[in-house]
Amino acid sequence: MNILIVNPNTTASMTAKIKAAACAVAGGDSVITATNPDGGPVSIEGYYDEAFSVPGLISEIRKHPQSDAIIIACFDDTGLDAARCITAAPVIGIGEAAFHVASMLATKFAVITTLPRSIAALEHNLHKYGLATRCAKVRAASVAVLALEDPASDARARISAEIQTALIEDRADAIVLGCAGMANLAHDLSTEHKVPVIDGVTAAVKLAECMIALGLTTSKIGAYSMPNQKEYLGDMAPWTP
Amino acid sequence: MNILIVNPNTTASMTAKIKAAACAVAGGDSVITATNPDGGPVSIEGYYDEAFSVPGLISEIRKHPQSDAIIIACFDDTGLDAARCITAAPVIGIGEAAFHVASMLATKFAVITTLPRSIAALEHNLHKYGLATRCAKVRAASVAVLALEDPASDARARISAEIQTALIEDRADAIVLGCAGMANLAHDLSTEHKVPVIDGVTAAVKLAECMIALGLTTSKIGAYSMPNQKEYLGDMAPWTP
Amino acid sequence: MNILIVNPNTTASMTAKIKAAACAVAGGDSVITATNPDGGPVSIEGYYDEAFSVPGLISEIRKHPQSDAIIIACFDDTGLDAARCITAAPVIGIGEAAFHVASMLATKFAVITTLPRSIAALEHNLHKYGLATRCAKVRAASVAVLALEDPASDARARISAEIQTALIEDRADAIVLGCAGMANLAHDLSTEHKVPVIDGVTAAVKLAECMIALGLTTSKIGAYSMPNQKEYLGDMAPWTP
Amino acid sequence: MNILIVNPNTTASMTAKIKAAACAVAGGDSVITATNPDGGPVSIEGYYDEAFSVPGLISEIRKHPQSDAIIIACFDDTGLDAARCITAAPVIGIGEAAFHVASMLATKFAVITTLPRSIAALEHNLHKYGLATRCAKVRAASVAVLALEDPASDARARISAEIQTALIEDRADAIVLGCAGMANLAHDLSTEHKVPVIDGVTAAVKLAECMIALGLTTSKIGAYSMPNQKEYLGDMAPWTP
Amino acid sequence: MNILIVNPNTTASMTAKIKAAACAVAGGDSVITATNPDGGPVSIEGYYDEAFSVPGLISEIRKHPQSDAIIIACFDDTGLDAARCITAAPVIGIGEAAFHVASMLATKFAVITTLPRSIAALEHNLHKYGLATRCAKVRAASVAVLALEDPASDARARISAEIQTALIEDRADAIVLGCAGMANLAHDLSTEHKVPVIDGVTAAVKLAECMIALGLTTSKIGAYSMPNQKEYLGDMAPWTP
Amino acid sequence: MNILIVNPNTTASMTAKIKAAACAVAGGDSVITATNPDGGPVSIEGYYDEAFSVPGLISEIRKHPQSDAIIIACFDDTGLDAARCITAAPVIGIGEAAFHVASMLATKFAVITTLPRSIAALEHNLHKYGLATRCAKVRAASVAVLALEDPASDARARISAEIQTALIEDRADAIVLGCAGMANLAHDLSTEHKVPVIDGVTAAVKLAECMIALGLTTSKIGAYSMPNQKEYLGDMAPWTP
Repeated sequence: MNILIVNPNTTASMTAKIKAAACAVAGGDSVITATNPDGGPVSIEGYYDEAFSVPGLISEIRKHPQSDAIIIACFDDTGLDAARCITAAPVIGIGEAAFHVASMLATKFAVITTLPRSIAALEHNLHKYGLATRCAKVRAASVAVLALEDPASDARARISAEIQTALIEDRADAIVLGCAGMANLAHDLSTEHKVPVIDGVTAAVKLAECMIALGLTTSKIGAYSMPNQKEYLGDMAPWTP
Repeated sequence: MNILIVNPNTTASMTAKIKAAACAVAGGDSVITATNPDGGPVSIEGYYDEAFSVPGLISEIRKHPQSDAIIIACFDDTGLDAARCITAAPVIGIGEAAFHVASMLATKFAVITTLPRSIAALEHNLHKYGLATRCAKVRAASVAVLALEDPASDARARISAEIQTALIEDRADAIVLGCAGMANLAHDLSTEHKVPVIDGVTAAVKLAECMIALGLTTSKIGAYSMPNQKEYLGDMAPWTP
Repeated sequence: MNILIVNPNTTASMTAKIKAAACAVAGGDSVITATNPDGGPVSIEGYYDEAFSVPGLISEIRKHPQSDAIIIACFDDTGLDAARCITAAPVIGIGEAAFHVASMLATKFAVITTLPRSIAALEHNLHKYGLATRCAKVRAASVAVLALEDPASDARARISAEIQTALIEDRADAIVLGCAGMANLAHDLSTEHKVPVIDGVTAAVKLAECMIALGLTTSKIGAYSMPNQKEYLGDMAPWTP
Repeated sequence: MNILIVNPNTTASMTAKIKAAACAVAGGDSVITATNPDGGPVSIEGYYDEAFSVPGLISEIRKHPQSDAIIIACFDDTGLDAARCITAAPVIGIGEAAFHVASMLATKFAVITTLPRSIAALEHNLHKYGLATRCAKVRAASVAVLALEDPASDARARISAEIQTALIEDRADAIVLGCAGMANLAHDLSTEHKVPVIDGVTAAVKLAECMIALGLTTSKIGAYSMPNQKEYLGDMAPWTP
Repeated sequence: MNILIVNPNTTASMTAKIKAAACAVAGGDSVITATNPDGGPVSIEGYYDEAFSVPGLISEIRKHPQSDAIIIACFDDTGLDAARCITAAPVIGIGEAAFHVASMLATKFAVITTLPRSIAALEHNLHKYGLATRCAKVRAASVAVLALEDPASDARARISAEIQTALIEDRADAIVLGCAGMANLAHDLSTEHKVPVIDGVTAAVKLAECMIALGLTTSKIGAYSMPNQKEYLGDMAPWTP
Repeated sequence: MNILIVNPNTTASMTAKIKAAACAVAGGDSVITATNPDGGPVSIEGYYDEAFSVPGLISEIRKHPQSDAIIIACFDDTGLDAARCITAAPVIGIGEAAFHVASMLATKFAVITTLPRSIAALEHNLHKYGLATRCAKVRAASVAVLALEDPASDARARISAEIQTALIEDRADAIVLGCAGMANLAHDLSTEHKVPVIDGVTAAVKLAECMIALGLTTSKIGAYSMPNQKEYLGDMAPWTP
């Protein structure tokens, strides 16, 4: 099983961390490839960074045509619909992976993401997936994405405090970590708070293996059918970060 | 990985068929145990049969305390909430398994179940899980559950016809088969109709393996916390089928 | 009019209290029969106890075939759908009775139940009945069901305090008491807080009389049609409390 | 028990028919008063007629201050919120009465109203009451309100045909008749179609008795609190039908 | 372009303030006519006052048959559906105007209205328009409508404080002012709080011009089709304030 | 007022048609600039083309920093959220413009788009905007986007036929045209079908003028706040159409 994980931002250390988390749970016959675009934002924090990450994400997927399943390793499921149009392989976003898994372990989960500016996008996704009624609240720990890469930051403490609030005020009975960069914290926080804490990266790896083993592929008769053949003029616009 | 599959009805041939479907997709390190209660209805068609299947289902789960995950192999997810109260192991219903998997492969799925009387229960479940907006329609093929065990019945033809209607009239782009007894038809019907056709039994097996590999367990702090200790008086009521 | 009230738990003192509350509001031509199963949990607190109460509940209903209407006197409407399958008589759950009545007296009601573990089940019911948007919040007073039977407990004070919070924080303009054992508190709490306080037992009695007087019966053409005839094998599983 | 029924239109023959239907189900200690405004539209078909019926409706309620409960006998629940502001007595609309009763007898009801122009108003009400998810479809039989007063019209046949369509196409398992003028048809149509057919007038009478017997009154702390004292200038605008 | 603004209450000073706000944003070719009924409540605070304002509102609209568009200048969109039945001209409520405009500037808006008794009506409207999911919360500043006409009141301070709470607690990113009498505060409060603050009067004027310029008119084939011709008997009921 | 209209596809003739439609309704003091990216797909049909259009769209917006309002002239509101992050000017999508305008003219609108593959994206948008309950159905006329540029195609006839179906089967009382390329058909189809037919391009122009006149700007405190400053590495990925 060839599983391609694309981190849509350009921070290689984060890609490495994601790969490590993925490999730790991958099945024996899974070959994990983790990559990120050469060009684009170093982190994805909100709608703007997201938009500029999709072409690079698509390009990475095109480079790996032998993939049996594809994982998009940004919690706002950057470019998920577009990616599903270019392949029959299953494509799993780490956000949706975590939401679906949490729904089978608890009655209501809370999401702890990085920055407040990401809350609306995650609420939109939950609404779109249908799982908004299963989510008690989307909370932000007010931690920048790259602070998660810095061992000296207070990121873990802030996330833990926000979990505590979610368990009491929102009556959540499971927690979803809302950023790929939090993958390494899940086990520890689960032990600390004595509730399921779901990380999307590892959840997506197992769901991808699940789809492959079941021989299931992305539907090709509706919105995810192959793009109509057409001309693409000129060059893509240059960066305007 | 010890995975316990409980068919909550008492038809052993159906349990065998479910086990075969499960073993066909199970991972190398999974040990599949399939069982059904000694007592109870031979098939579950609607709310009444469901009610009388739950005590037997719970009893079977109690008999297998070493299970790392438990699957309830009736499409209306009989007794799912009660089962989650007595174990920290993940408990997966084949209905919810199919709905969650379908949601990651298509924009809208249709469900093809057996009898019209089951439609309301499945609609309630979809509503409860949050996935009602992802389901184009729940349809009944007007096939009795045990007709699926009879090779001479026209069950397959009726199911195929209903799929065709769902793809055109409901604009579904994936199909969920709404009965454990249809597990063996999924692959064939997918080839015929060129869309993903999801069977809940196999989906649940892979999701169960997913939960075990991730070390995730059922939340024990809310509605699924262990039952309060209390007296249970007298004997259970006798059958009143 | 023969009205059968089944308390699905096995605590006879609670059945007596429910009967007293029912008789206090019943019409002159109503004959109230109140019963509980011989076997099963002494109280119903959550999904697990619920599952083991349904066979006994069904059995009690079977014992009283002359009933013109049936009331299920547990606030989570234990076994309501199953019960509707075996009779054309109207079957009313005390939870739904209270929700419907409250909806006609106020713009938004709050529910005060016993233990936090019951909140999710009540939220699911509200969702299923369609009335979730009419409910400001389901709150738990953290009172065990049987504490309501103990005059020395602080149950009443806790419930009153929770009502106060609901009126202010949730802007509820009516209160629903979320346990059959609170039936005797409604009038008093209404006087204290100057808002409608609805108890499900009494509400259900009057709704049952309403259905009988109107000659209305449970629909027998869909999910509530009579169970398909089929074999029920063996004995029911023994208690596993 | 003094129950006031206000037919908000000015057709006295319809008021008489409503009163007859009400008396046929009223309890022995109920005194039914049925009235209609002196001025206003002869029938209410849509939002415009509705607006001009509310002042007359309020005036009729003011004339009967001893009422223990009030029924608004137009299926779009004309002026229900305004009426609730001027009395602590329960106020029941015949539309909401029918919807709530149907919800306790079946999984999904269809509404058969008179003219297509009324569909949107009823859909809005269902949405507002929270019961839209319990309604399979609102259908119009294309019958003018006053045609129901004319024995020579084909109104009954059209309504019966629309019921048939609702049972098959919408999978409704109960029918709600969407006009006060259909009150006399319910029993007959129920026998013909073998499903519960609910009429709002009779349902509202029994629900009103239910509220009175329970000692329940309209909430006076929120949107239904007594109107703020204020000046009302000049005369009301003359008719502009 | 003839734009008619009807203030449905009878306070002429408020009509003047509304007209001033309207004229300040009206286009060069717009002729603004602002009027109020001669008879009716001096302010509209809740469902009761609303009901008595509609006939006067309709009468004012009838007096100005040359209007190219009509604005109803009460935030609960008094009589909006009825008004749409008597004209093909577009009819805009200031409530809906503000909600639609806010939806295009922010992800979630909060509404700050006058008295708590109005909250339910606004929530119903949001639900009906479909925009409830875009509204973080409807809040009341506990300010009487006519206090807004009194420069010595603390109305502005209370509204500003409530905005502050909405931005922090509800995470709203835009504010809608929920009363016509607040029209003059919008600009100032926007500057103070550094978020869009939308006033319905000015929003409605521009939307009305938008409809006229586009040649769009109210649909006349469904619920807003012209009222069926019928008799209106007698006189309208006298005031019963 | 400088209004920038960006057609996110690269077909200049379509940009010209959009500009003509815009200028026909623009106010006297509006200066309309219409542009399209140099690079990218010649038409946008589904999620894939959409993804590759956003960087070009953003680039065009960056080139016109003096714009007082920005219109995105593709009916799936391509890149709307990202665009709102880089400017305080209001940004209006032609899809949302049409949905909001239709909501104020009718009780329920139907959308007629080009290809079935676009239906899911429009349904998602309606869901996200909150207006899904106002939409009777999204229908596809099975017309390719560029067929709208070809006078010899049967596009107009197909769209008209689909409108007819929507009015009868879906009971829509207004029609929204679901593609920028249909802008020139709205007036004619409205006359033919005697219902409001709303085109998003012209609706967006007037809404943009409305926002400018009101001095309203995009919220900058939540998800639309300015992008966090960060490095964008390397070059954007090349075309992979």
